[in-house]
Amino acid sequence: MSKTPRNAFYAQSGGVTAVINASACGLIETARKNPTRIGKVYAGRNGIIGALKEELIDTSKESKRAIAGLLTTPSGAFGSCRYKLKSLQENAREYQRLIDVFEAHDIGYFFYNGGGDSQDTAHKVAQLSQKLAYPITCIGVPKTVDNDLPFTDTCPGFGSVAKYVAVSTREAALDVESMCETSTKVFVLEVMGRHAGWIAAASGLAGQFPDEAPHIILFPEVNFNREKFLARVKRTVKKSGFCVVVASEGAHYANGQFIADAGSKDAFGHTQLGGLAPVLANMVREELGYKYHWAVADYLQRSARHIASAIDVKQAYAVGKAAVDFALEGQNSVMPIIVRKSDKPYRWTVGHTPLAGVANVEKAMPRSYITRDGFGITDAARTYLSPLIRGEDYPAYKDGLPRYVRLKNTLIAPKLKKFKLNT
Amino acid sequence: MSKTPRNAFYAQSGGVTAVINASACGLIETARKNPTRIGKVYAGRNGIIGALKEELIDTSKESKRAIAGLLTTPSGAFGSCRYKLKSLQENAREYQRLIDVFEAHDIGYFFYNGGGDSQDTAHKVAQLSQKLAYPITCIGVPKTVDNDLPFTDTCPGFGSVAKYVAVSTREAALDVESMCETSTKVFVLEVMGRHAGWIAAASGLAGQFPDEAPHIILFPEVNFNREKFLARVKRTVKKSGFCVVVASEGAHYANGQFIADAGSKDAFGHTQLGGLAPVLANMVREELGYKYHWAVADYLQRSARHIASAIDVKQAYAVGKAAVDFALEGQNSVMPIIVRKSDKPYRWTVGHTPLAGVANVEKAMPRSYITRDGFGITDAARTYLSPLIRGEDYPAYKDGLPRYVRLKNTLIAPKLKKFKLNT
Repeated sequence: MSKTPRNAFYAQSGGVTAVINASACGLIETARKNPTRIGKVYAGRNGIIGALKEELIDTSKESKRAIAGLLTTPSGAFGSCRYKLKSLQENAREYQRLIDVFEAHDIGYFFYNGGGDSQDTAHKVAQLSQKLAYPITCIGVPKTVDNDLPFTDTCPGFGSVAKYVAVSTREAALDVESMCETSTKVFVLEVMGRHAGWIAAASGLAGQFPDEAPHIILFPEVNFNREKFLARVKRTVKKSGFCVVVASEGAHYANGQFIADAGSKDAFGHTQLGGLAPVLANMVREELGYKYHWAVADYLQRSARHIASAIDVKQAYAVGKAAVDFALEGQNSVMPIIVRKSDKPYRWTVGHTPLAGVANVEKAMPRSYITRDGFGITDAARTYLSPLIRGEDYPAYKDGLPRYVRLKNTLIAPKLKKFKLNT
Repeated sequence: MSKTPRNAFYAQSGGVTAVINASACGLIETARKNPTRIGKVYAGRNGIIGALKEELIDTSKESKRAIAGLLTTPSGAFGSCRYKLKSLQENAREYQRLIDVFEAHDIGYFFYNGGGDSQDTAHKVAQLSQKLAYPITCIGVPKTVDNDLPFTDTCPGFGSVAKYVAVSTREAALDVESMCETSTKVFVLEVMGRHAGWIAAASGLAGQFPDEAPHIILFPEVNFNREKFLARVKRTVKKSGFCVVVASEGAHYANGQFIADAGSKDAFGHTQLGGLAPVLANMVREELGYKYHWAVADYLQRSARHIASAIDVKQAYAVGKAAVDFALEGQNSVMPIIVRKSDKPYRWTVGHTPLAGVANVEKAMPRSYITRDGFGITDAARTYLSPLIRGEDYPAYKDGLPRYVRLKNTLIAPKLKKFKLNT
């Protein structure tokens, strides 16, 4: 006689991506293949908040087809949140609540799909469960467009943003090039990346030869020098007729001031919350007089499932699947990671690393990935980045639009009293 | 004994699109199929400027494969320009120069691929050729993302921008929806459309039901009312938890002031050249306090060949092909147009209309396409727009990036003296 298998809890955390649902798909499909080991998979409504508020989505109510549809649906199908649990000392109350909710619903597996903060939370829950002698297997599932988790070769979510940015840069560059004789000479594209320039670096894949666009990439890793920047813009326009600039939102001056914050003030004296693209464009206009255009990709870049990287989708699915596999193997307090076996041909596998080492460690972009002048990427960067954007994995379309699934997201009946979140 | 066939001149004009090269492809391939009727196809380097400067690209130097590649390559492969020829009275000199260049290179066909201004120029060249007794067949080829040419059901270029905007809106809306519990509640996407709201209207296709995103569309056709807008944002956030706004760059107040121009001043007292998305976002923050994000698609939207509408690509090719077919049928001073035969199923054919009627007439979006409250699109608009974004027509990829062709663009030897452009 086998005993009833314990249930699993899964939550999506932080900024969503084009492929975080692919991880959910891999995780839920794999759990469903092991009904004697894992009972139901409950998903947190709006991430970890769903656990704290005991708002648990019963994913067993979703059809096989709906779950399969997660593979090609961007964003967080169960809702995500920006909610960081403080340390165990400061915040015993919320950690205790998590354990209470897990216990109330016989949850024996905690899968947390997010970035560094989430891995930290998963690690703390693992520590606490030992202390409280409540057995729960805690597995982190990596996700972040920022590509800043350590140990894993890349973070699911990054490859698709990288592909979006590289493709968009190539396309916009052709546009500017064809118009530059009489019209726009400088184009600025602002991309995500507050602390690291991984996403901006990916735009460099758009050009294959020294003078091809993008001509200038601005990284948070390199202090912005106005004069050097303007001189390079001028030189590029003189030589090529036009200049394409791709800038990380986090690019800043040597004193730490973001370029974006150097813009004008509004009527109330607030800094205009403008993004750095218009600030750079104004700089070009005022100093060099060139006609310009600028774009800010913002959420379009991280939700662009229509142009997701096939490799990224595969890896996102694989880490979701591996989370369950590792749990069933008896691993605990680990995070699946992508391990690169070789560059050419690109080969990878899934390994795992202890959560203790992952928590709150940011992986910086190596300086060797940036050219000496600070405006471009090196061959080492290309070797690393290129495989991550390979392959297309198109969603199905209906009437010209992608068919993205919308789940039923049925909540189970709560068993505990209401809980007030920290605010 | 057949006499030597006369040559053709083709030029791309104004803002480029994801499919203007598809028109070039249709035109050049059709001309090549008629070698006894049309000699070489010369393309203007950077549009009509190429004719004035006698910088003529010999397209016969391009391989069959390169020309075929134009079908899937965005932007203007021969270069485009913003250069409007003034009236014949004011500017006899430049028109005379065109005729001189055409005569020097035995050009008997003038194909001008552009918007209203270009059709006007083509019409004037036709008039002049009669006056000067220099026989030349003038055919306009429609192109504009603005969808503002009269008589044609749609303009090649529009359907692909419409698809890009609808797909991006659907994707970004999923992103905001999944984050809204604890993070961004209002997302603003700025799209093109200075005079007409066609492109913004297309975003409405992203949502199929009344409360689906986009919740608010701002059109140039509807005067912007700050209070009404903010009230609607507030109501939407209260009801749905988040609010997606898509705004035409040309949206303006009743007094004609662009929303974009109502932003703050920079240190020199210049209006911050910011675009309207950040201005709207600031408005929301100051009055309602919601967390927001904003994006400006700018050139990304019109160069996004990776997500072009298959219908748009077909129509762009068809008008290029028809331009040659009509010329060989003996038509003159006409523009091929898309004629809609039925909505469901969507059926269309190519007709033609006299250039005299097209020149400088802008097609406005019917008021009946906008809901009474001014914030959405009607079923009539859906019926019109929906077929235009149908079908995907993906370019080939290599190493994760679209393979866009780059032509050799070999100039022929000039025969005339240098010519100074008007400035």
